[in-house]
Amino acid sequence: MGTELVELNELVTIFDYLGTFAFAISGVRLAGAKNFDIFGAYVVGFVTAVGGGTIRDLCLGLTPFWMIQPSYVVITAIALLFVIVFKKHLIHMNNAFFIFDALGLGLFTVVGLEKSLAAGFPFWVNIIMAAITGAAGGMMRDVLINEVPLIFRKDIYAVASVLGGIIYYIAFSLGMADIGCQVLCLVSVVLIRILAVAFGVNLPSLRSEESART
Amino acid sequence: MGTELVELNELVTIFDYLGTFAFAISGVRLAGAKNFDIFGAYVVGFVTAVGGGTIRDLCLGLTPFWMIQPSYVVITAIALLFVIVFKKHLIHMNNAFFIFDALGLGLFTVVGLEKSLAAGFPFWVNIIMAAITGAAGGMMRDVLINEVPLIFRKDIYAVASVLGGIIYYIAFSLGMADIGCQVLCLVSVVLIRILAVAFGVNLPSLRSEESART
Amino acid sequence: MGTELVELNELVTIFDYLGTFAFAISGVRLAGAKNFDIFGAYVVGFVTAVGGGTIRDLCLGLTPFWMIQPSYVVITAIALLFVIVFKKHLIHMNNAFFIFDALGLGLFTVVGLEKSLAAGFPFWVNIIMAAITGAAGGMMRDVLINEVPLIFRKDIYAVASVLGGIIYYIAFSLGMADIGCQVLCLVSVVLIRILAVAFGVNLPSLRSEESART
Repeated sequence: MGTELVELNELVTIFDYLGTFAFAISGVRLAGAKNFDIFGAYVVGFVTAVGGGTIRDLCLGLTPFWMIQPSYVVITAIALLFVIVFKKHLIHMNNAFFIFDALGLGLFTVVGLEKSLAAGFPFWVNIIMAAITGAAGGMMRDVLINEVPLIFRKDIYAVASVLGGIIYYIAFSLGMADIGCQVLCLVSVVLIRILAVAFGVNLPSLRSEESART
Repeated sequence: MGTELVELNELVTIFDYLGTFAFAISGVRLAGAKNFDIFGAYVVGFVTAVGGGTIRDLCLGLTPFWMIQPSYVVITAIALLFVIVFKKHLIHMNNAFFIFDALGLGLFTVVGLEKSLAAGFPFWVNIIMAAITGAAGGMMRDVLINEVPLIFRKDIYAVASVLGGIIYYIAFSLGMADIGCQVLCLVSVVLIRILAVAFGVNLPSLRSEESART
Repeated sequence: MGTELVELNELVTIFDYLGTFAFAISGVRLAGAKNFDIFGAYVVGFVTAVGGGTIRDLCLGLTPFWMIQPSYVVITAIALLFVIVFKKHLIHMNNAFFIFDALGLGLFTVVGLEKSLAAGFPFWVNIIMAAITGAAGGMMRDVLINEVPLIFRKDIYAVASVLGGIIYYIAFSLGMADIGCQVLCLVSVVLIRILAVAFGVNLPSLRSEESART
């Protein structure tokens, strides 16, 4: 347990908390826009923040991370208070929140990769776990507020997470140190997400049939 | 294994069955109102009744409680039959069903607290597990029938469960016996729920922005 | 480990792969009809194909089957490519896809029964696990595309799976060999599903109250 490992763990923890805050804000705001009460908004914020990681941990056979220590419950409460206090000014902060959300996606991707790697799974499972950690919370948020998940229809979102995971493994295969792979992965996800939105890059849609429902 | 413990276990079992019936009725009725067929109504009733406890058990690392003994499958079937036989009279029983539902919420809160406590988790996890046991089934029901979860928008519902959990721990900290804490928690949840509806108490809503979706 | 057991395992594997392809196609097509992008369509296809089995494995305390080997990820990708390449002709293949889907339902029912049986659960749990394996993926698909689950409102679907499970146990109780029970169960589910649609057999609906929501 050298100094480097401790620092690495601390970095992962900071990643985790920042991502939690950014995701909780997005859940609370969208629930508020749908006229949820403050407790409902808290629940949607919490599910947005910890939902992806919970699915990941259950799939990996681990106790959900937020049950081990109360930080995530507290951070979501801070996010709720933040939205209540600044609610009239939030719309002017949309650019800031977009950056927060991109950062959260990058941070959660790294955390998901590391946990799946530590549980002994092969690289392709780790990449899926990274994408679930990054994107499944937003998917659950949209299901709870009764909307078609936005991440499946607009911009590059979960795909940024998958690409970040692949970049991690290329760097890892070339012999880069763990901390280097993590930073590279984080930066890649955030950049891909920001550039995709800045240049209006969308994945092609499948639409072509009138109706596939038989 | 003294007499008291046996009685305590029996009490928890009775709590469990009554709550299952009340929740299954609510799922079956709402599915029926959405034109589900009888099997679909059974599934929605079953998910409403056991969904919260299933999420709790998976988070606690336990086999879902309804897979250990067939009571819950049978009770849901009885609830379906009850709705089919009495369907023309159900609307006149709305007050009775409201009491059933409040009782179910209280009962599930106690059961959730006890199971999480027995699994060795700290008090704040137990309170979350209690609220999940009480309220997540209704949330899953509303997702299945494609409605915005009602419990997030109207009345005091999951919050009654959280307050009941906090009251349990205050009583527990003051040295009250387990059975006393359980009864106090149950009565608190049921009373908070009933009084909130009787006096039209709602949590404040977050609405203020035009649209938070970026 | 005699030859028969090996063949039996191979049969189960083939069942699994064929069902995965059929279910993924249905998820990809419905997501496409809702204007999802190709990654979103992939995710919906994947969830449709592996969602039921994932819930089953988590309930049984097992690692989700698709994390053990990459076949399911690959088969879903093939299904996505198939839909992209043949999209203009898919509507003329609806009868073929209906057969695929019926086959998938039968195959997943058998796989679900076998896994639950191998995990040591009693027959009624095995039948529920079979129905979850066969029908929960389609339910999750409909939740993700924000539709009321079709399987609860139209035709005989999950019920075919339940009836197949019951037929399996009747044959098993009469002393039929495992492989015989499996084939009989598969054929029963597929036939019940096809005959129900051919003759327009639906389960009765529960509708009768104006509104059950209190």
